[in-house]
Amino acid sequence: MKNKQSLKPLVGIIMGSDSDLPVMKGAAEILKEAGIPFEMTIVSAHRTPKRLVSYAQTAAERGFKVIIAGAGGAAHLPGMTASITTLPVIGVPVKTDAFSGLDSLLSIVQMPGGIPVATVAVNGSKNAGLLAIRILALEDKTLAAWLEKYMNTMEAEVEKKAEKLEAENNG
Amino acid sequence: MKNKQSLKPLVGIIMGSDSDLPVMKGAAEILKEAGIPFEMTIVSAHRTPKRLVSYAQTAAERGFKVIIAGAGGAAHLPGMTASITTLPVIGVPVKTDAFSGLDSLLSIVQMPGGIPVATVAVNGSKNAGLLAIRILALEDKTLAAWLEKYMNTMEAEVEKKAEKLEAENNG
Amino acid sequence: MKNKQSLKPLVGIIMGSDSDLPVMKGAAEILKEAGIPFEMTIVSAHRTPKRLVSYAQTAAERGFKVIIAGAGGAAHLPGMTASITTLPVIGVPVKTDAFSGLDSLLSIVQMPGGIPVATVAVNGSKNAGLLAIRILALEDKTLAAWLEKYMNTMEAEVEKKAEKLEAENNG
Amino acid sequence: MKNKQSLKPLVGIIMGSDSDLPVMKGAAEILKEAGIPFEMTIVSAHRTPKRLVSYAQTAAERGFKVIIAGAGGAAHLPGMTASITTLPVIGVPVKTDAFSGLDSLLSIVQMPGGIPVATVAVNGSKNAGLLAIRILALEDKTLAAWLEKYMNTMEAEVEKKAEKLEAENNG
Amino acid sequence: MKNKQSLKPLVGIIMGSDSDLPVMKGAAEILKEAGIPFEMTIVSAHRTPKRLVSYAQTAAERGFKVIIAGAGGAAHLPGMTASITTLPVIGVPVKTDAFSGLDSLLSIVQMPGGIPVATVAVNGSKNAGLLAIRILALEDKTLAAWLEKYMNTMEAEVEKKAEKLEAENNG
Amino acid sequence: MKNKQSLKPLVGIIMGSDSDLPVMKGAAEILKEAGIPFEMTIVSAHRTPKRLVSYAQTAAERGFKVIIAGAGGAAHLPGMTASITTLPVIGVPVKTDAFSGLDSLLSIVQMPGGIPVATVAVNGSKNAGLLAIRILALEDKTLAAWLEKYMNTMEAEVEKKAEKLEAENNG
Amino acid sequence: MKNKQSLKPLVGIIMGSDSDLPVMKGAAEILKEAGIPFEMTIVSAHRTPKRLVSYAQTAAERGFKVIIAGAGGAAHLPGMTASITTLPVIGVPVKTDAFSGLDSLLSIVQMPGGIPVATVAVNGSKNAGLLAIRILALEDKTLAAWLEKYMNTMEAEVEKKAEKLEAENNG
Amino acid sequence: MKNKQSLKPLVGIIMGSDSDLPVMKGAAEILKEAGIPFEMTIVSAHRTPKRLVSYAQTAAERGFKVIIAGAGGAAHLPGMTASITTLPVIGVPVKTDAFSGLDSLLSIVQMPGGIPVATVAVNGSKNAGLLAIRILALEDKTLAAWLEKYMNTMEAEVEKKAEKLEAENNG
Repeated sequence: MKNKQSLKPLVGIIMGSDSDLPVMKGAAEILKEAGIPFEMTIVSAHRTPKRLVSYAQTAAERGFKVIIAGAGGAAHLPGMTASITTLPVIGVPVKTDAFSGLDSLLSIVQMPGGIPVATVAVNGSKNAGLLAIRILALEDKTLAAWLEKYMNTMEAEVEKKAEKLEAENNG
Repeated sequence: MKNKQSLKPLVGIIMGSDSDLPVMKGAAEILKEAGIPFEMTIVSAHRTPKRLVSYAQTAAERGFKVIIAGAGGAAHLPGMTASITTLPVIGVPVKTDAFSGLDSLLSIVQMPGGIPVATVAVNGSKNAGLLAIRILALEDKTLAAWLEKYMNTMEAEVEKKAEKLEAENNG
Repeated sequence: MKNKQSLKPLVGIIMGSDSDLPVMKGAAEILKEAGIPFEMTIVSAHRTPKRLVSYAQTAAERGFKVIIAGAGGAAHLPGMTASITTLPVIGVPVKTDAFSGLDSLLSIVQMPGGIPVATVAVNGSKNAGLLAIRILALEDKTLAAWLEKYMNTMEAEVEKKAEKLEAENNG
Repeated sequence: MKNKQSLKPLVGIIMGSDSDLPVMKGAAEILKEAGIPFEMTIVSAHRTPKRLVSYAQTAAERGFKVIIAGAGGAAHLPGMTASITTLPVIGVPVKTDAFSGLDSLLSIVQMPGGIPVATVAVNGSKNAGLLAIRILALEDKTLAAWLEKYMNTMEAEVEKKAEKLEAENNG
Repeated sequence: MKNKQSLKPLVGIIMGSDSDLPVMKGAAEILKEAGIPFEMTIVSAHRTPKRLVSYAQTAAERGFKVIIAGAGGAAHLPGMTASITTLPVIGVPVKTDAFSGLDSLLSIVQMPGGIPVATVAVNGSKNAGLLAIRILALEDKTLAAWLEKYMNTMEAEVEKKAEKLEAENNG
Repeated sequence: MKNKQSLKPLVGIIMGSDSDLPVMKGAAEILKEAGIPFEMTIVSAHRTPKRLVSYAQTAAERGFKVIIAGAGGAAHLPGMTASITTLPVIGVPVKTDAFSGLDSLLSIVQMPGGIPVATVAVNGSKNAGLLAIRILALEDKTLAAWLEKYMNTMEAEVEKKAEKLEAENNG
Repeated sequence: MKNKQSLKPLVGIIMGSDSDLPVMKGAAEILKEAGIPFEMTIVSAHRTPKRLVSYAQTAAERGFKVIIAGAGGAAHLPGMTASITTLPVIGVPVKTDAFSGLDSLLSIVQMPGGIPVATVAVNGSKNAGLLAIRILALEDKTLAAWLEKYMNTMEAEVEKKAEKLEAENNG
Repeated sequence: MKNKQSLKPLVGIIMGSDSDLPVMKGAAEILKEAGIPFEMTIVSAHRTPKRLVSYAQTAAERGFKVIIAGAGGAAHLPGMTASITTLPVIGVPVKTDAFSGLDSLLSIVQMPGGIPVATVAVNGSKNAGLLAIRILALEDKTLAAWLEKYMNTMEAEVEKKAEKLEAENNG
């Protein structure tokens, strides 16, 4: 599938700090694989609140369909973004040193009624990307086909690994 | 906004047990408010596994765009649904007696790479509905306008309550 | 001590929702007792993000010295306020239904380096008020004396209760 | 005791991913030690839902008496297997990175009324094997004797270690 | 199905205290429903350690096939029973006041290698009974048929409830 | 056994607040039952730090052999008492509203090397009393006999309850 | 900014053990950066209770405005200090081996009504320093300007990192 | 102080497995330092239940005054020992891989009314030793003096470290 990175991005990936990049790359990679143009940057709810407001306010008009926001600890980025835009926002709780991401998870998922954040697993940025793809595939048959194939491939790979494991362990 | 309940449902709301209905009604109500046709039923991953498989397999062809799945305890319904359909699946962790929904939350949100579930707060079915609306609004301008208005109304209501609280408490 | 409520408020008490009022009243009451003018209102990080920004941006110029912010669940109000103002911000984690305030506590206390929030106990708004008083007493001898007296009274009351308990239980 | 691996397997060991193999080997080893024929393979509830259904549906007719299922995170494999077969299913919560297996444990043990999963400790696959042996020993006197001997040996080993520790530390 | 209560009991149900009876009755009821003779009594690991030892030592020779043991807090009854008998022991963590059964669960499930306890959900005594039935059904075709029917009935009931819920909510 | 309450107290029972009395009474009652003279009062580590210091400093010379200290939340009373006296200090974590006593438990039990606190269960004041009795019984044969009898009675009571439960449920 | 370390210290930094120094240095460094004179030492609530009392009793008269206290485990230092002085006390929960600082956090933050401790994140000593600066800046315009600049710099640095990340990842 | 290891042991140190030795050595070392004769061995509640019963039953007549029992996971050793002897039993929760000792702690501390276990911190065997010393010192003036000195030394060491830290950091 042709990489459409040069096209207008459909997904915005943001993270609270550049230290979150190794985690958040998972989202970028799967989007790239699916040929979905995206843009990745840093937006810190706490260190750059104005940047957060302007990013979220202009996200829809800039053509984004989905925003993926990753943050750790008292993780306010996904929720604050969702409070300013009407786009679907996917939150990725980044694993933390003290609480292994429980703090990030609760800070992101326990949003009050009115402002939803679609939360994935701790460090689950790949699934954040796949969730964005599922959303975009609703109106994009090529993408829907890609998804179908992706899941079939995943299935086939497990079956192959199963065969290998059986051969090596049940002999 | 006209209620389109008689139209072909765009959102499927499923729950593991009829005891989840009081929680899951929140999703139905907000969808109704937004005029989005939906269908609500019971699908138990554990008690009706065949029903689960057939529900998830036919969801897309039946015209659903989004599935909202609520379950409590060892909550497998959202994840198993997401493993069979390519539609976006929103998981609602239902509060439980022993662990207050921590079990439900972790069972739903900690999905392995490959199969995403968009998880909302414990008992957060209203936000599950709003997330579905945000997704559907991507291709529906009327809905996008409804969302915009919904958020403005929410804002106005808080401001009104703020005025009232100020008048009563700062006199 | 004369109630100075009509004077320019030194402390701003904000909360995410009017349902937090019963909890947050504890801060107001102790400030009133100490004769410190305050202002109490609702500011929702999620439902009124613009109001949050403007509240925090103007807090210092309006004469506030300390802001007390209470919120529950994915509690972003204290941290977001602290990211916009340079005033000391005291966060009160409000008890929640599902996680008893563990979500609120972690969302408030686990702030990243750079933006501090002075967190008190779950539902500990009285102590939030007392912390504000300790801060204000640094430059206000009357208030310092009030604090000293407050602590002595507290001590005396415990001693009185101790005597009563001893009389009734050790006879 | 003669290894009966070439015989028809009585125990099916399944795991969600080949990365679970180092943990799940513990079950295989103890079964091998007891001379119980088993079969080990990969069945992913999420990546291969059809394989899961067919595995569980045919397990009894293929001659399995017990199924041991290990999975981590949102661990649905044991519960979903138990919902399709009437064989006893033993669940092994695999330790995870973010929550050390608390997510796996709660996802497996908190099953709703109607569908039991016999859960063992996090990474406790050896005990899963021993539990299968206890079940099979109900109708197999040789196996019952093996178990008796196993427990006696364990006891003797502890006593030997106790002697050694006493000699070295109480001198 | 004829109630075989007067026959020699196959399952021993024990609990640490008579206050656990309301929880543990769930196991008795489902066994009664399946026509499996059982015996229910109190054995406290801490208050009657000798009774525990003699109960566990004689369990197999008295004809029991499975022991179901429920306890709360520092719940040692299931594990200690399993350390003395070679029968399969099913542990039921009873919900507690302070930790809602997390203490019971961890005390029961986290057994060291060598001594397995088949743990079910907090207060999950019904599933403990069903697990015993699954074990006994391995060598009892009537029971296997009962189980099959039980699961089919459960499935049918959910489908009936689903129809009712659909009729009432999707009108 | 004759009540020796008028004699010089051997056990000091202290609690952080009179609201802890219903919990702490359990210790007093069992000591009374065993005929051990005790003294019960309020000492708040936080509200009466001077009282705490003087209480702990004079405890040994006043004839106390054991101190039982109960407190909730950030429970510093047992640990601070233990840091000032060389007597054995038993800590009772009092159940709290937000964290059900987990905060109390961790605040009491996780003492640093050098200063031990003998911690019992959340709200476990009866066991605190029994632990004091076990300590005092080391040098008091009458008390040792009382303890022996206490445990035998407890055993007998469980056996009686077991008989009753068997009669009513296995008939 | 000129280092005023030789001046009379305004902030007292204390910690329970010299092993806390690597964590607590963060507070010292940011205070140094802001030119605020401070004094750092060890005060152990448990090992040196008399030192604690005298430190807290004389803190105000020695000219301290704020005390920063770090401790781990059953962390009583911040709360006990706050119970003796009327100065604002900032508590830093130090990460621990067994509970990753959850014990420290709850021991510090869950103070009873009457005695507040301004708690920051686990190992969040830098923010403890910044909170002290926010408090001191209330009456010190130079410091207020420093804070303003500090936050602007932080913002600018994030923006710079964002540019870099964008250049490298969206090319 | 002369080492009395050759004398009749007053303290019995037991542990569930030889892998607990590195942790439990802390108790032995401090007892040795205080000159208290002790005996250390392995007693596994689960692997050697008969050994447990006989150890606990004969502990008092063998001259032990205190038993220190360490165990991890589903840690039944301290509680079971306490249920058989009337001696004071001190429980040491050993840190575990999956739950860092939370399982051990809850399994040990949450004993039911009637059977107390004096619980110390996770891996807190040194404090277990010190608690035994505090108990034994009640009737041993030399030991009481040793304890007094021990605490003074500890105090002096902290003060010395404080001086060093001050010299190096406040220069």
